[in-house]
Amino acid sequence: MGVEEQQSEEIDPLSDPEERCVLYGALDSFRQYRHAAHYNVTHLRRRAFYSLPSAHMELLSEPPFALPATFDAVDEAIDSNADLADAILASGLPSFGIDANDTSWYGHATPNDMEKARSTLRQFFRDWSAEGLRERNSSFLPIISALEHHLPNLPPERRYQCRILVPGAGLGRLVFDLCAIGYVVEGNEISYHQLLASNYILNCTNAAGQHKLFPWAISFSNHLSRADQLQSIAVPDVHPGNELEADQHCVNSGVHYSDRMSMTAGDFCELYRRPNYMNTFDVVVTCFFVDTAPNVINYIETIRHCLKSNGLWINIGPLLWHFESAPTPAEKKSQAHCSHDISTSCHSSSAGIGEPGSFELTNDELISLLERLDFEILEQKQAPSGMTGYVQNPASMLQNVYNPSFWVARKGRQR
Amino acid sequence: MGVEEQQSEEIDPLSDPEERCVLYGALDSFRQYRHAAHYNVTHLRRRAFYSLPSAHMELLSEPPFALPATFDAVDEAIDSNADLADAILASGLPSFGIDANDTSWYGHATPNDMEKARSTLRQFFRDWSAEGLRERNSSFLPIISALEHHLPNLPPERRYQCRILVPGAGLGRLVFDLCAIGYVVEGNEISYHQLLASNYILNCTNAAGQHKLFPWAISFSNHLSRADQLQSIAVPDVHPGNELEADQHCVNSGVHYSDRMSMTAGDFCELYRRPNYMNTFDVVVTCFFVDTAPNVINYIETIRHCLKSNGLWINIGPLLWHFESAPTPAEKKSQAHCSHDISTSCHSSSAGIGEPGSFELTNDELISLLERLDFEILEQKQAPSGMTGYVQNPASMLQNVYNPSFWVARKGRQR
Repeated sequence: MGVEEQQSEEIDPLSDPEERCVLYGALDSFRQYRHAAHYNVTHLRRRAFYSLPSAHMELLSEPPFALPATFDAVDEAIDSNADLADAILASGLPSFGIDANDTSWYGHATPNDMEKARSTLRQFFRDWSAEGLRERNSSFLPIISALEHHLPNLPPERRYQCRILVPGAGLGRLVFDLCAIGYVVEGNEISYHQLLASNYILNCTNAAGQHKLFPWAISFSNHLSRADQLQSIAVPDVHPGNELEADQHCVNSGVHYSDRMSMTAGDFCELYRRPNYMNTFDVVVTCFFVDTAPNVINYIETIRHCLKSNGLWINIGPLLWHFESAPTPAEKKSQAHCSHDISTSCHSSSAGIGEPGSFELTNDELISLLERLDFEILEQKQAPSGMTGYVQNPASMLQNVYNPSFWVARKGRQR
Repeated sequence: MGVEEQQSEEIDPLSDPEERCVLYGALDSFRQYRHAAHYNVTHLRRRAFYSLPSAHMELLSEPPFALPATFDAVDEAIDSNADLADAILASGLPSFGIDANDTSWYGHATPNDMEKARSTLRQFFRDWSAEGLRERNSSFLPIISALEHHLPNLPPERRYQCRILVPGAGLGRLVFDLCAIGYVVEGNEISYHQLLASNYILNCTNAAGQHKLFPWAISFSNHLSRADQLQSIAVPDVHPGNELEADQHCVNSGVHYSDRMSMTAGDFCELYRRPNYMNTFDVVVTCFFVDTAPNVINYIETIRHCLKSNGLWINIGPLLWHFESAPTPAEKKSQAHCSHDISTSCHSSSAGIGEPGSFELTNDELISLLERLDFEILEQKQAPSGMTGYVQNPASMLQNVYNPSFWVARKGRQR
C-alpha cells in the first residue's frame, strides 16, 4: 500500500558505525529468534524434565499432563512466531539496502535486542489482532472521541485538513486507525525493532490472517490451562491496504489515504524540534509514550514547537518512566557491547533522547508542568475507559493493568 | 514473646561454608540497605538532575515540583526504612552467635541479596501494617473460613487440638493470625532474609507502630502524587505479644499461645519428609507458596507425608513459577559469586529444593496431579475473594493483581 517512510536525513544507519550497530542488532535479533526460542524455551525445559526422577517423568509424560507433547506444541508455536520474525527480517534487509548474501550483521544482537524481538512479536496481539481490540479501544476510543469533540466542525471528508503527529508510533496501528477515519497522520518511531515490524505489517502483507501468532506460548507461568498458553491469533486482523481502500470510500476523503499516512524514523526530539517542523501539526497524540522521556521537558517543548498555535495535545498512558530501571553505572560497564547498551537509548544523538539529565514526575506534577510550559488543560481524567493492560493476556492468572492518565491540552500563544 | 525457632538440626549455618555464605549475604544486605539506597535512589537522581539544562533545573526546583525537596524527603524515608533494616540486623547477629565486633560477614551481599532486602522491607506493608489488611483478608479469610467449614466441631478453646503447618511462612503473619484464633501453628521458611525479619517482628519489637516504613518511597514511577510515593505506614500494626496475650483470653484456649506457635528454618521438602514428621499435621496451609517449587511433585509428596490421614491441604496463590525466570546457564556463569547464586535456591541440600529437574504446570494440570497423588479435592475455585495484589500499592497507576487458585484437598488413605 506504500506508507511513505522518511529517514531523518542526517542519519544513514549504514554509514554511521554507532547507528549501524543498533540496526544490525535489531535485524540479527529477528534472525536469531527461532533458534534462541527453541533453545531457551523448549530445549532447556526438556533437559530439566529428563533430569527428573523417572517415576515423576513417567507420570508427567502421560495425559492429562503429557509435558513432552506440550514441549512439541510449543516448538510448533515458536516456529509459527519465527515465520513472522523471518518475514519482518526479509522485508527489512532490502529496505536498508542489505544484500541477501551479506552476513556482516550476523551476531550483533545483544540480550536486550533478543528481548525486544520477543516483545515486538508479542505486541502484534495488541496492535494487529482481533483479540487485541479491547486493549486498543481502551486507549484509542478516548483519543478519537477527543478529536471529534474538540474539532467539531470537521466532517470525515474534510478531516484531511487536520494533520496529526503520533510520536512513539510502535507497530503503527493508531496511525493506521486515524488515517482510516480521514485524518492526515504522521507516525514517528525510534526503535528499529518496531520500525521493521510496522513496515512489514503495513506494506508487505498479502492478506488478513496471513500469520498465526502464539503470543503467550513461550511463558509457562499463571496459565489456567495449556490451551490458554497455546492460544493462537490471526495477524493482521485486517489487511491494511484493503482496509484503507474500503475506508477511503466510506470517508469520501478529498485526499487519498496514501497521501494521508507516513512514518518517520529517528529520535522524536531531535527531529521535530527542527525549524522545518515549527507550527506544523494540528494535533499531537501520545499514547503510552511520555514516560519514555529521560527529560519530559524536552518532549513538551518539542510538541509545543511542532504544534500550530491553538493546536491540541491528546495523551493517554501511565508513568512507567522507562529510564528509572536503566542500569546503574556499574551494571552498564559489565553489560556494554555496543555503546547503545550504555545509553539505553537506541540511537545516538546530540540533541535528543541521549541528552544528559533525567527526572521522573508524578501525574499531578506533569499536569502542572504542562501549564507552566504554555499548555491549557481542556480535559484531564484517569482511565477514561477503565483500567487497561498493555499486551496483557486476558486469561492469565496475573493481570498487569494501568490506571492511565488522559488529557487534552491546547497550545497557548504566549511563548 | 518467645516464638520458638528450630533450626533444622544438621544445618549449622556457621559451620557449613556454603550455608554461611548465604547467611552472610542476607545479613550484609540489611547492613548495606541504607548506603545502597541513598546511592542508587537519591545520589544518582541528584546527579542526573544537576546534569539538566539550567533553565530546566531552575523550573523543577521551584514548587509545585521542588524535586530537590523530594530527594531530601526520600532520603528521610530511606533512613526510616534503614532503621528497620538495622533493627532486623541487630536482632539477627546474636541469634546466630555472631559477635558485634566480628566483621567477617561484611561485603557478602550479592545484587540478588540487596534486592531481597528491599523486597523484604516492602513486605511489611502486606504482613504487618493496617494498610495491608485488605491484601491479607483476600488470602487469609478464605483459609480461615475453610478451616471452620471443614473442621466444624472445633470451638476456639479446643482448636489447639488442630496442628497446622505453614510452609513459606515469610514474615509470619499467617502463622500469627492462625495462632491468635487458637490453632497450633508451625511456620517453615527457607530464606534468611525472611527469617531474620520475622524473628525481629515477632520477638523483638516493643510496641505497635514502633517503626515508620515508607514502602513505596524508592520507586519513582506511576505515582499520581508525591504524597502517594511518600506514604508512611506504622509497623507493626499490632504488638504480636500483646495481641496474642489478649487473644489468649478471648479464645480461652487450653494451651498457652507460646506453646502453639513455632518456626522452623530450612528447606521444606528436606525437613518435612523426614520420618519424624510422618502423619504429624492436621492441616497444611500454603499461601503464595506452591509456585516456588522447581518440582511440585516433591512439595505434594512432602505435604502428603507430613499430613495425618484425612488431613487437609488448603491452598491459595497464583502459579508464578519462581524457577521459570531462573537465569540461563550462560547467565549463571557470569553472575556467580556464592554458589547459591547458581542454584537460585537459598540453601544447599541433597534432598530438597536443590534436586535436579523442574517443570511448570497449568492450574488444571496441578489439580489433576493432586488427585493422582492421592488427594481428594473438596473445594476448588479461582479468586475466592476477588483479584488480589501481593505487596501492591493501592494508589499506584500500575496494579499487578492475581486471580489466585484456591483449593481444599483431603489426604486419602490408599498410599
